[in-house]
Amino acid sequence: MAERVLMKGNEALAEAAIQAGCRHFFGYPITPQTEVAAYMAKRMPKIGGTYLQAESEVAAINMVLGAASAGVRALTSSSSPGISLKTEGISYIAGSDLPCVIINVQRGGPGLGGIQPSQADYWQATRAPGHGDLHVLVFAPSTVQEMVDLVMDAFDMADLYRMPAMILADGALGQMMEPVEIKERPKRDLPEKTWAANGHENKRPHNIVNSLYLTPGDLEALVKERFARYDLIKSKEQRSESYMADDAEFIVVAYGASSRVCKSAVKAARAEGIRVGLIRPITLWPFPVDAIQEAAKTAKHFLTVEMSMGQMVDDVRLAVNGAVPVSFFGHTGGIIPSPAEVLGEIKKLAGGAK
Amino acid sequence: MAERVLMKGNEALAEAAIQAGCRHFFGYPITPQTEVAAYMAKRMPKIGGTYLQAESEVAAINMVLGAASAGVRALTSSSSPGISLKTEGISYIAGSDLPCVIINVQRGGPGLGGIQPSQADYWQATRAPGHGDLHVLVFAPSTVQEMVDLVMDAFDMADLYRMPAMILADGALGQMMEPVEIKERPKRDLPEKTWAANGHENKRPHNIVNSLYLTPGDLEALVKERFARYDLIKSKEQRSESYMADDAEFIVVAYGASSRVCKSAVKAARAEGIRVGLIRPITLWPFPVDAIQEAAKTAKHFLTVEMSMGQMVDDVRLAVNGAVPVSFFGHTGGIIPSPAEVLGEIKKLAGGAK
Amino acid sequence: MAERVLMKGNEALAEAAIQAGCRHFFGYPITPQTEVAAYMAKRMPKIGGTYLQAESEVAAINMVLGAASAGVRALTSSSSPGISLKTEGISYIAGSDLPCVIINVQRGGPGLGGIQPSQADYWQATRAPGHGDLHVLVFAPSTVQEMVDLVMDAFDMADLYRMPAMILADGALGQMMEPVEIKERPKRDLPEKTWAANGHENKRPHNIVNSLYLTPGDLEALVKERFARYDLIKSKEQRSESYMADDAEFIVVAYGASSRVCKSAVKAARAEGIRVGLIRPITLWPFPVDAIQEAAKTAKHFLTVEMSMGQMVDDVRLAVNGAVPVSFFGHTGGIIPSPAEVLGEIKKLAGGAK
Amino acid sequence: MAERVLMKGNEALAEAAIQAGCRHFFGYPITPQTEVAAYMAKRMPKIGGTYLQAESEVAAINMVLGAASAGVRALTSSSSPGISLKTEGISYIAGSDLPCVIINVQRGGPGLGGIQPSQADYWQATRAPGHGDLHVLVFAPSTVQEMVDLVMDAFDMADLYRMPAMILADGALGQMMEPVEIKERPKRDLPEKTWAANGHENKRPHNIVNSLYLTPGDLEALVKERFARYDLIKSKEQRSESYMADDAEFIVVAYGASSRVCKSAVKAARAEGIRVGLIRPITLWPFPVDAIQEAAKTAKHFLTVEMSMGQMVDDVRLAVNGAVPVSFFGHTGGIIPSPAEVLGEIKKLAGGAK
Repeated sequence: MAERVLMKGNEALAEAAIQAGCRHFFGYPITPQTEVAAYMAKRMPKIGGTYLQAESEVAAINMVLGAASAGVRALTSSSSPGISLKTEGISYIAGSDLPCVIINVQRGGPGLGGIQPSQADYWQATRAPGHGDLHVLVFAPSTVQEMVDLVMDAFDMADLYRMPAMILADGALGQMMEPVEIKERPKRDLPEKTWAANGHENKRPHNIVNSLYLTPGDLEALVKERFARYDLIKSKEQRSESYMADDAEFIVVAYGASSRVCKSAVKAARAEGIRVGLIRPITLWPFPVDAIQEAAKTAKHFLTVEMSMGQMVDDVRLAVNGAVPVSFFGHTGGIIPSPAEVLGEIKKLAGGAK
Repeated sequence: MAERVLMKGNEALAEAAIQAGCRHFFGYPITPQTEVAAYMAKRMPKIGGTYLQAESEVAAINMVLGAASAGVRALTSSSSPGISLKTEGISYIAGSDLPCVIINVQRGGPGLGGIQPSQADYWQATRAPGHGDLHVLVFAPSTVQEMVDLVMDAFDMADLYRMPAMILADGALGQMMEPVEIKERPKRDLPEKTWAANGHENKRPHNIVNSLYLTPGDLEALVKERFARYDLIKSKEQRSESYMADDAEFIVVAYGASSRVCKSAVKAARAEGIRVGLIRPITLWPFPVDAIQEAAKTAKHFLTVEMSMGQMVDDVRLAVNGAVPVSFFGHTGGIIPSPAEVLGEIKKLAGGAK
Repeated sequence: MAERVLMKGNEALAEAAIQAGCRHFFGYPITPQTEVAAYMAKRMPKIGGTYLQAESEVAAINMVLGAASAGVRALTSSSSPGISLKTEGISYIAGSDLPCVIINVQRGGPGLGGIQPSQADYWQATRAPGHGDLHVLVFAPSTVQEMVDLVMDAFDMADLYRMPAMILADGALGQMMEPVEIKERPKRDLPEKTWAANGHENKRPHNIVNSLYLTPGDLEALVKERFARYDLIKSKEQRSESYMADDAEFIVVAYGASSRVCKSAVKAARAEGIRVGLIRPITLWPFPVDAIQEAAKTAKHFLTVEMSMGQMVDDVRLAVNGAVPVSFFGHTGGIIPSPAEVLGEIKKLAGGAK
Repeated sequence: MAERVLMKGNEALAEAAIQAGCRHFFGYPITPQTEVAAYMAKRMPKIGGTYLQAESEVAAINMVLGAASAGVRALTSSSSPGISLKTEGISYIAGSDLPCVIINVQRGGPGLGGIQPSQADYWQATRAPGHGDLHVLVFAPSTVQEMVDLVMDAFDMADLYRMPAMILADGALGQMMEPVEIKERPKRDLPEKTWAANGHENKRPHNIVNSLYLTPGDLEALVKERFARYDLIKSKEQRSESYMADDAEFIVVAYGASSRVCKSAVKAARAEGIRVGLIRPITLWPFPVDAIQEAAKTAKHFLTVEMSMGQMVDDVRLAVNGAVPVSFFGHTGGIIPSPAEVLGEIKKLAGGAK
């Protein structure tokens, strides 16, 4: 499957998981991610995999926990309200040091909200994918090709660091059709899953998967060991794309669907002589702090553009730490900012600066 | 009931809710908050109220949604994993502009974690109590008396601003016994619940409670209206206690159970001549940004102390915005930092400064 | 409320429960019984009662178990598929010797079936309202007035014999409007509920409600004690209406909606000189064996008419025990036999006999 | 696997299902059938099958419905309370004309009852495995070898007649160890599943699996077509074992675990010169009416022996139809009648007759 084919974002997410060796999908239908499940329902039985539409979102994430415990690559996908229902399970998976991949094709919230695209689950993904001290890897694709690539990376990195990874997409990307190439990738060298609670023909003691530790000292030691891993990840796995940012006085920060709009706006602003660039986070956790701080050395002003009331802007502010101002522009409720609007915001910043 | 009585924290939370006029409690048992439910189970039937142990945490929060829709004061309580299960429902309640009170008597996480006290759900409470753009009022009591007072305030403010309010307690406070006084309070002047979907004998059109808006423009308008209310709250409702902070070079920031320890440490450090003070946030959302920024004018260094791997520290950094350094010290997994440990941390900061 | 009013069957069932002192209703909506729940939803809050739409049929019946344990009169209602889901809970209630009332407004089955009236849950009601050795009292109203009266009787007899009672109605009766009189009834002398697990201010030991007995001898003794009560009920509580049956050569046996049709057919057949009568069981468990056996002394042939493929016919055959032939005529799937059809069947029997 | 091996009843049930080609098991653990699920959990993954422990009994039976819809052989197993929870789903499967196998390893009831063996779900199995007019095939093994053989037959006959089949076992048989031979069987000639809702590469219209028919006439026609099949089954598929019954004056009727005891008692009674025989139903639905009626021609008295308060005795009475008396003896609550007790009962009958 190395040729280029036209695929819908949601289907690309699903096919990429299969190519990554995932044979266990557990989900529950919700717009605008339903095509992920539908695609899996068709494909999995043909390749000896398991597709299961669970009784509820809660059931689905707990089945992921079970499958991941057995050492197989397990996937679930949902959209915003469904992800809330999964947060207990995600915390259990993180607390059990299990790898898995969770896709959130975000829709407008809060509540039932709407079925149009959104980026308003940023805080949930990066700060509170469940109760307690925990993080999950968060990847933010901005093209259908990147949806493919990041799903594959997500499975690898989840296995490498024994933790859940989330693909934070949105309804615009999920419904978008673009050409993609699903290449054979060099097999990453990943640790053997010696911890898996699977069959062993009595050749070793039973493995136990657990997240309950009644002695506080034991629990703290475990959490601290996990946070040491998180620190390693923060130092090694930050990813972002830099676009015309080297000499930029103004830096737009945006990810996912809104970053596509911002790229157009940056290009247009450059055509008008404004020295503006874009930093596009590809990992949201770990947040690309280094790239932001590097840019902060020369930039006069940051602008984050989000399909929310402003969430990632906190992470930019924390990275910039007061060195220069950080502004926010966004839409919520399913509206994608237009290039003209973003260009207008850039001009406002540049207006004062020229 | 104006005399002082000795009460356990969890029971004080429950009794305060009753005194605040709450007659609808829906919950599900989980350590270390079980006494809240147990107390309600005993009291509610005697006063014509409804106590209901639901089939699940998910059921419980949706019953709160239903009761709140009808205009009555509704309460649920749980501990960390249970709150994760409730996040979908909390988002629905916020998205429906309904008042209610949610108690989280935090335990160690992630996953099943432990049953000892914790403050590791700070991010969930303040950033992502559910999917989408939303906030809930978050109150952090540090004594049993404050548990009483803040539950009463929470009901009033939830009604005033038509939004959920959360009491973010922990297992230490929940199990602690202290004398409390449950005073008759002057009845706050609260708006009539003209929006409630309750009986009206055909004297007005039916009210509809809903969080689904399929037209993005409608949803955005609604969310923006809600965020205007949030801005009002941020300007009017920040609360914190300041302790020996006026002339302080060093500011400890801590809330809840850990703030009690910090107060002892601050007192001990003062005895040794170190000019240190404590700012204790009482509202976590809205965060007492003004108090922190005021202190940042004179302080050389901030130290947050949390029963987590460091969460509130982000809010202190955002408030301080790089003006002075902000350090973190904490324990997780159910361990409460000791006064000696905090004193040690204060001395480290002061060491450079003396 | 002693005057005659026009009521829909389902609403009459609900109002009668309220008049019988029931203040706890737990249900889940399903056609064609939805008006029972809707009526309760409106009325209960006005009279200090509890109406609760549960998360599922399973939740609803377990709430009935809980309420009944506390000694209050508890009601649930549903239609055929919902009753299947409740069978586990009904068995728990019976196994705990608790009184309650369950309404089944039958619809066509099996499966989702249809939403038209049916009598195809006869076997379930009389033989297997749950797993294990158990019976529930089963009442079969044939008019809206009888729906009122039998609901009241059902509560009394459930309390008297400490067991569940079921009203086996159907969609035709549920939707039918007829004048009813809800009279004040003389209060029946019922035993005090000394077994109830409710508050007692430490004046007695705690009561425990339980259906688990790990020692087979204990369980058998309990079941046998219960069956002794069943025998008493069989001897004292059989109820049926006899219509032109005294001198009848042919006996039609029918209950509920189909008995109305049969009454017309019997009258028409009498007009043509055929000596036919109707026995209409009012209690289905205990089945009116005595009335059938009395009639069997003179009758030459029995005919049961049911809105099913033939279920009650077994009980008639068991009662008649081979003395004379027992035939069956019926419709299923939501079709009510017509008087003309039943008359035709009567004539077939009489044809040989004339 | 043609050699004789020692197997536990529950494991034999599971292995037989696998040998019968079943690769889809959905269940939920409950004593005393847990070994069925445990065996499947180990074996299924090794042979490319699906073992799924569902969120609940209700979820499990609906997964069976789904798998059966796709045309594969699907199995669930449970014990008494769990089967009650499955009755809704069983009715849906029957109403959708789908084949599947359901195992009930009965325990004492009602309610939670006990965990010792029982036969008290006879009525549920044969009369009301769900709401509405329906039957399922019911097989009653009495040895571990028969558990193997009847599971295989059950899958074949379920496919042949497009309906659910139930294995009605009990905790004694489930826990019993006996030698079994799992022979390769000649492949039965079964109809192709042209109705299955599975993949067809657009070579035919989609198949739809459904049990909802809003037009009563359509539903009735369908049910009547199904009952015509039931009549065919009654005429062709009755099965029973006859033991020393040819010249018997007294006929004991017993199935499953209690029939083993009765066989000993019959042998002992014969040794004392009493002309007694045993008819052991192997199919409970269809009930072996013909064998009973044949025996009724010469027998003076029937005695059914059951591990219940008397349920099958109804079917014997219906078959005998008053020709000779039918008595009942039994134990319930988990107690198995002893050979001495049954011999005593036989002697009581014979006492009058000698």
